Amino acid sequence: MLPTITPPGFLWPKVVPGTDVKVNEWIKQLQGLDEGDKNWDVVMFGVPLSRSSISASGASEFPEAFRRSWKGFSTYNIDHETDLKDLNVADIGDVKMHFTDIPQCHRNIKETMKEVLNHFPTSFPVAIGGDHSITAMLVSGMKEIYPKKEIGILQFDTHLDLRDLSDHGPTNGTPIRNLIEQGAIKGENVYNIGLHGFFNSQSLIQYAREKKVNYITLKEARKMGVVETVKKALAELEAKVDTIYVTIDMDVLDISFAPGVPASTPGGMRTEELFEGVYEAALSPKVKAMDIVCLDPTKDHQAQPTVKAGTYTFLTFLTGLLNRE
Amino acid sequence: MLPTITPPGFLWPKVVPGTDVKVNEWIKQLQGLDEGDKNWDVVMFGVPLSRSSISASGASEFPEAFRRSWKGFSTYNIDHETDLKDLNVADIGDVKMHFTDIPQCHRNIKETMKEVLNHFPTSFPVAIGGDHSITAMLVSGMKEIYPKKEIGILQFDTHLDLRDLSDHGPTNGTPIRNLIEQGAIKGENVYNIGLHGFFNSQSLIQYAREKKVNYITLKEARKMGVVETVKKALAELEAKVDTIYVTIDMDVLDISFAPGVPASTPGGMRTEELFEGVYEAALSPKVKAMDIVCLDPTKDHQAQPTVKAGTYTFLTFLTGLLNRE
Amino acid sequence: MLPTITPPGFLWPKVVPGTDVKVNEWIKQLQGLDEGDKNWDVVMFGVPLSRSSISASGASEFPEAFRRSWKGFSTYNIDHETDLKDLNVADIGDVKMHFTDIPQCHRNIKETMKEVLNHFPTSFPVAIGGDHSITAMLVSGMKEIYPKKEIGILQFDTHLDLRDLSDHGPTNGTPIRNLIEQGAIKGENVYNIGLHGFFNSQSLIQYAREKKVNYITLKEARKMGVVETVKKALAELEAKVDTIYVTIDMDVLDISFAPGVPASTPGGMRTEELFEGVYEAALSPKVKAMDIVCLDPTKDHQAQPTVKAGTYTFLTFLTGLLNRE
Amino acid sequence: MLPTITPPGFLWPKVVPGTDVKVNEWIKQLQGLDEGDKNWDVVMFGVPLSRSSISASGASEFPEAFRRSWKGFSTYNIDHETDLKDLNVADIGDVKMHFTDIPQCHRNIKETMKEVLNHFPTSFPVAIGGDHSITAMLVSGMKEIYPKKEIGILQFDTHLDLRDLSDHGPTNGTPIRNLIEQGAIKGENVYNIGLHGFFNSQSLIQYAREKKVNYITLKEARKMGVVETVKKALAELEAKVDTIYVTIDMDVLDISFAPGVPASTPGGMRTEELFEGVYEAALSPKVKAMDIVCLDPTKDHQAQPTVKAGTYTFLTFLTGLLNRE
Amino acid sequence: MLPTITPPGFLWPKVVPGTDVKVNEWIKQLQGLDEGDKNWDVVMFGVPLSRSSISASGASEFPEAFRRSWKGFSTYNIDHETDLKDLNVADIGDVKMHFTDIPQCHRNIKETMKEVLNHFPTSFPVAIGGDHSITAMLVSGMKEIYPKKEIGILQFDTHLDLRDLSDHGPTNGTPIRNLIEQGAIKGENVYNIGLHGFFNSQSLIQYAREKKVNYITLKEARKMGVVETVKKALAELEAKVDTIYVTIDMDVLDISFAPGVPASTPGGMRTEELFEGVYEAALSPKVKAMDIVCLDPTKDHQAQPTVKAGTYTFLTFLTGLLNRE
Amino acid sequence: MLPTITPPGFLWPKVVPGTDVKVNEWIKQLQGLDEGDKNWDVVMFGVPLSRSSISASGASEFPEAFRRSWKGFSTYNIDHETDLKDLNVADIGDVKMHFTDIPQCHRNIKETMKEVLNHFPTSFPVAIGGDHSITAMLVSGMKEIYPKKEIGILQFDTHLDLRDLSDHGPTNGTPIRNLIEQGAIKGENVYNIGLHGFFNSQSLIQYAREKKVNYITLKEARKMGVVETVKKALAELEAKVDTIYVTIDMDVLDISFAPGVPASTPGGMRTEELFEGVYEAALSPKVKAMDIVCLDPTKDHQAQPTVKAGTYTFLTFLTGLLNRE
Repeated sequence: MLPTITPPGFLWPKVVPGTDVKVNEWIKQLQGLDEGDKNWDVVMFGVPLSRSSISASGASEFPEAFRRSWKGFSTYNIDHETDLKDLNVADIGDVKMHFTDIPQCHRNIKETMKEVLNHFPTSFPVAIGGDHSITAMLVSGMKEIYPKKEIGILQFDTHLDLRDLSDHGPTNGTPIRNLIEQGAIKGENVYNIGLHGFFNSQSLIQYAREKKVNYITLKEARKMGVVETVKKALAELEAKVDTIYVTIDMDVLDISFAPGVPASTPGGMRTEELFEGVYEAALSPKVKAMDIVCLDPTKDHQAQPTVKAGTYTFLTFLTGLLNRE
Repeated sequence: MLPTITPPGFLWPKVVPGTDVKVNEWIKQLQGLDEGDKNWDVVMFGVPLSRSSISASGASEFPEAFRRSWKGFSTYNIDHETDLKDLNVADIGDVKMHFTDIPQCHRNIKETMKEVLNHFPTSFPVAIGGDHSITAMLVSGMKEIYPKKEIGILQFDTHLDLRDLSDHGPTNGTPIRNLIEQGAIKGENVYNIGLHGFFNSQSLIQYAREKKVNYITLKEARKMGVVETVKKALAELEAKVDTIYVTIDMDVLDISFAPGVPASTPGGMRTEELFEGVYEAALSPKVKAMDIVCLDPTKDHQAQPTVKAGTYTFLTFLTGLLNRE
Repeated sequence: MLPTITPPGFLWPKVVPGTDVKVNEWIKQLQGLDEGDKNWDVVMFGVPLSRSSISASGASEFPEAFRRSWKGFSTYNIDHETDLKDLNVADIGDVKMHFTDIPQCHRNIKETMKEVLNHFPTSFPVAIGGDHSITAMLVSGMKEIYPKKEIGILQFDTHLDLRDLSDHGPTNGTPIRNLIEQGAIKGENVYNIGLHGFFNSQSLIQYAREKKVNYITLKEARKMGVVETVKKALAELEAKVDTIYVTIDMDVLDISFAPGVPASTPGGMRTEELFEGVYEAALSPKVKAMDIVCLDPTKDHQAQPTVKAGTYTFLTFLTGLLNRE
Repeated sequence: MLPTITPPGFLWPKVVPGTDVKVNEWIKQLQGLDEGDKNWDVVMFGVPLSRSSISASGASEFPEAFRRSWKGFSTYNIDHETDLKDLNVADIGDVKMHFTDIPQCHRNIKETMKEVLNHFPTSFPVAIGGDHSITAMLVSGMKEIYPKKEIGILQFDTHLDLRDLSDHGPTNGTPIRNLIEQGAIKGENVYNIGLHGFFNSQSLIQYAREKKVNYITLKEARKMGVVETVKKALAELEAKVDTIYVTIDMDVLDISFAPGVPASTPGGMRTEELFEGVYEAALSPKVKAMDIVCLDPTKDHQAQPTVKAGTYTFLTFLTGLLNRE
Repeated sequence: MLPTITPPGFLWPKVVPGTDVKVNEWIKQLQGLDEGDKNWDVVMFGVPLSRSSISASGASEFPEAFRRSWKGFSTYNIDHETDLKDLNVADIGDVKMHFTDIPQCHRNIKETMKEVLNHFPTSFPVAIGGDHSITAMLVSGMKEIYPKKEIGILQFDTHLDLRDLSDHGPTNGTPIRNLIEQGAIKGENVYNIGLHGFFNSQSLIQYAREKKVNYITLKEARKMGVVETVKKALAELEAKVDTIYVTIDMDVLDISFAPGVPASTPGGMRTEELFEGVYEAALSPKVKAMDIVCLDPTKDHQAQPTVKAGTYTFLTFLTGLLNRE
Repeated sequence: MLPTITPPGFLWPKVVPGTDVKVNEWIKQLQGLDEGDKNWDVVMFGVPLSRSSISASGASEFPEAFRRSWKGFSTYNIDHETDLKDLNVADIGDVKMHFTDIPQCHRNIKETMKEVLNHFPTSFPVAIGGDHSITAMLVSGMKEIYPKKEIGILQFDTHLDLRDLSDHGPTNGTPIRNLIEQGAIKGENVYNIGLHGFFNSQSLIQYAREKKVNYITLKEARKMGVVETVKKALAELEAKVDTIYVTIDMDVLDISFAPGVPASTPGGMRTEELFEGVYEAALSPKVKAMDIVCLDPTKDHQAQPTVKAGTYTFLTFLTGLLNRE
């Protein structure tokens, strides 16, 4: 049954919310500003933009597929014996998009991030993409709100996302370079975990080295364990920056776990590694915002492994937030 | 964007409903009885039952897939220059189902039909299945409300649905026999259009003949045209009965048009024939209720031809209702 | 349940064959020669060869998929009010194939046809391919048994199958030329219905004209109707030959009806046209053998429209046989 | 084998082009301007833009899928006994696209059309989309080259494409209105064939009426036949305009024939109707350019019915060009 | 070739069973009681029931798909250098199911288990589901035959299956609670391995704790290894109970390995872990019966990873049985 | 854009090859012998033969799919900080195949290998299958060129490929036995890594033992690590033979990573294990030739995990070649 179909009263009894709560029954979908006053722990919004992707992408469909998948998840995380119901999470809808004016879309995303930070100053913002170009807008909006704060990036990705903006503008191949070049972040404050194989050209590696971007290939990360690698990256970041932004490009996952991304590859991360890494990231008190990008439900299998992995990633991250000391 | 996500007020402007209305913006999803007072032209409800099907069926998923498809349809029917907005349609939700007590499910369906007829006496009820077993419950509920009225059936189907109930109870192969045997209808007041090929055994034909069920094979129907056949059947029914119930088993369609049914077959009806036949049926003033059954979205192709055909059928039927003289 | 699983006696009651017989319960699967004595009306065998196809083909899987589909079909044909149970049909298994010696496969096919004609002299042989190369072997075997008889061919096909054997040997593009060049048939005794579009080169047309092969494009056939075209072809053949062989290449069907063929095309025949044409063909008393070829179940959709169309074609043909005067 | 893999000389013999020519062997793929001097009958180019589509679309992939499908088609059209080899066709590559600057993409398309008309003044240009937004650019480019000429449009479409540009700019829902509002064409010189069902809002119909756009629903077109309808539209256009541009939105086709479009619908045109209509259109001496748009290969079935239908449409159109008197 | 098609003798030589035996040639499919006298090591039966599932499930199709997959497996297990041919395995068919009377289906399952235990007292029974509701019936039947024996459960599952029966009766979410509440087993004698993520509500955890159900999350199990975890669970069970029943819910597997289950999830077990755990379980002399449930072939990929994993699990379990000391 | 479409000069600027080179821009596709003079490090050719497969296979389509996938791969391998651009790689096209004469195909393959070794004596040959039958031809050709050299085989496979040739000739189940029996190699010089489960009969194991074929099951290999196992096998081979041939049957991979093989199985190797093993193999100076076989793109998922894994394997092997000391 659609989550929105509350059956009428005369025949179908009212649903009595018990202890068995599904995610769709728990996350509050706000209908307007007046509801915005509540002291939300997490404020989530969709960013349905993928016309800025290098290759054809349906990542714009993810926010809807993400919400629809909620009913398949309980709020209780058995691995951490944590019930997410104790967290107040609001879904404030999707950023408004224009169909042919991509710069306008990007401005809307940045403005939304600024509004969210202003309007919900104590909440943790989570953006659900959309493609990776949005991260440049979101972090840049954050930087405008907190201009004095040094921002670091923890990135899970198969790609460096350091392409030259002068080639094709702010595509999903450019967000990290975009932020470095506009001065919002420093290259040395970027930690990218998950690179592997033949999906980054030598010139991007050279740029990364010049800018001192920290990239840890999946192979290296596995040597000490992905979780330990994340811990180490966070420790270094915590020593250097005020605020950490976590960005998860779902193409970091292996094609057998995540066929539903614009450019799926063999040799990538397993879902369990991502889930554990993301949990660890959420524990860090300096992590202040997060996004999940480049998940294209139109390329997913019928059983939706990638969409479910996206939702699982989100909920695992929230588990970490709730378990912060 | 999910139909339910009304974006908050501060960043995303309110949607201003203009003349370009999608079906999901038009059909009113009721949340309770208090809204039931309005003078609805059509009252629609889902019947998510398919565990009573002979073969494994996901037809229980259709009510949700049906509603989700609405946003792909405008309310304006260009073929008949009719805007459905002039019709007041309420969606009152789904009949409550039990997971292991099929007789209870069937009782709920019958009771719902009775409640709907009592509560919305001037509305036209439409049931969205679910499998064909539900038709026996719906018509039987109608008969209890109007015990004096003679009810006729106009059926679009690849099957006679006259199987013996003593074999496996009220499955999706039995509804018409079920109704005949319980005395709710007479065999001679059933008109079944669309039979073809090798999908009905000789014993069912014999039963049909004994009970004087009128069956018109697709081949015969095409000789005079499906629309003309429907007109003729309606004319005969109008002369014999007080009330006509229209039941549309989506497996009447050819497998190339409707792969998403439990037992799709070659040699079936084209969608355009069904749409035209259904429009004609809706014009008849004695037609008082309708259902669409045996559409299994889990077997559909990715582009959802069958789900879309189901929604198109529903909207075309409503167009006919609106254009009744 | 698998057709072969007869449940043991103590718990599961014996199936009591009633009037509702499925095709798998009706066609007798012979286990050896001793059963061969019965006076079968039709003797059917599988020819699981497709390594002789020009492009990669899984048509070798069709005999198994064909038999497995039987349980979805009743023996009663409602369009012709005919119950196939009155026909005695034996399935004698599959021709033995070698995995790397295609000429040996072809010899086995020819020998099988000869054995069948010798051993079941009063039966009607039906071969289930496999690719179209097998038709040359089957007809050639028939010619050796009846060397004095003039054999004609009624072919439903998108292709002429007149490719030069000196290019790549007896592939699925060559059977008709193969038969003409070995003298088994005359070009003028071939009637090919269903050609369309861009799938036959000009050189093949030239060869067809030289050899006086009668080809009727689908467009032309539709002008008088496919059934009338078949009737006309049969009438001409009946006046010229002693024996007519019907060969049905399933790629004659449009890609929307039959995606499961090695080279599916738009612009092809509808299933209903094929079914009606095939029924008509079976009525002709001079039609003495038949095959169905180039149906590749590995390319079919999940709902198996092509496999079902193949079985429907076979059963419709049998209906015609039964209704011969 | 890839069309580009010419095997070396020592082991693999040279392919000797005979009379059996495939489309990929016939259409000349130009590598630079110097080859542009030849007197080409048709000059074809790809327009891989679909980020301007309302919904997520992979129509940008069609030019590549289109070219790759050529090897499945012979140059000989058996329906019209015409060999396309007699036509000189050049493929000049794809229009260069920017990844985030949609206006720049649109300018490139317009400039390309102008360059093509200037550089190949006697050739017939064919554009392979991409989404329908490109038609506004192509016709507008043509208008700039021939400012004195009155241009008419023959459109095959499920949609009017008359959406308001002020909503979301020049998307695939707007090209006809775009052209009317910039004065490149008059509404009364647009003939749209194929509308049906619930896919155009009432406001667009009103706009169409105001601007005197001629729209003929599929249902109406079928009453006199699609071919006759096309003939009538062409006759009227020939009397009113100097130049006719044919634009084919593949979503005019029924979802069972063309699942691979962004918004496939039931109740649409059959491929055979489109092919015949397009052939007729190509015969008109005033038809001077053509495009095929909104075919999304990423949504197609594995057997590629939609891609093949696109190529079939193109080749059928060329057949008509060759057969012009 | 279908396993049932033994080709006739005159042309096709008899298959001479050599050392290369496929599973379908080895497992004996019994046709009636008289064959039941043999001293079978293992007696296997199908339980094609899934209309008792919470969500729409085609697990009823697994027994047939399971048997059909046998021909892809040799009897020789190279990992354990064991040839299963040394085990006598009988397939006695499927439990008879009613289409609308689920309680009757459940009674039949229980009665079958009792009959099997009575009729084949020295054989090891294996049930092939069907959904997980059947386990309650099978174990309960076993308890009635051996009322004095304490029965323990080793469960591989993503879910606790401890839902309240008063909600929706004995669905696939309830079997363990069902058995506890009817007194057939004690909670402390249940060992559930494989729980992870967000798929069990807090109330079920509470119930598990109250009843002392031993649940080991996948994460915990991996710390010492899945095999070691199974060993430890068996050791504890062996100390407490007389008889151990192994139940394998295939949804314990990760969605990338097993898409073909009603509710596939990311973060689950790998097939190799399940295979090794199951082998270990079969070695325990107290393990006396086993089932495999909730495998839905209609949701599987074309290459059938889940069906093959089910068969592999079964054969690996048999390998363990054969290698018991 | 197709790799072959170089856009003309007037509108589309020339592509300026920078440091970001895709594999399709790097590998040189030779058009004839005259280009053969260059001192290529690697010479690659396709072997599009799969009609010699036991079961229906589309592995003949892999050479084309392989080449088409190149544009998704950069030449830079981040795991080994190696840019493949430093290697000169030529693609000399495909071996010419006959459609019905499999022995002729096999002769062509052998002759090609001999020609390649003669014509490019300093180059490393790589063959892209096709099915595994080709390996017997390739190694046998190599043996004829270097009759004095002892050749060893390093094989990654789920099967022993030791079937008896007298059964069905040189299929994909026989290459290793074929080479042993013709005396080209000794059994003791074969190292097969990756066997598991139920996919090799006991008789083949017996043959392997008789011939002293070294087979290491995946389970055993994982005990010391796949890389260490490969190292050990190479060390033993290097001590015994002059030349090592590496043959990679892609069915060694688990079905979840490689659905696109003729007989995919659960319980197989992970891609990362194969990539690392293959890299190690390429480092050995005695490794002199390599093939990749039994990858069937027609069975792959839409995202092409298997095709991409094949290309990844090839590029990883080349990385090893480049990094040889």
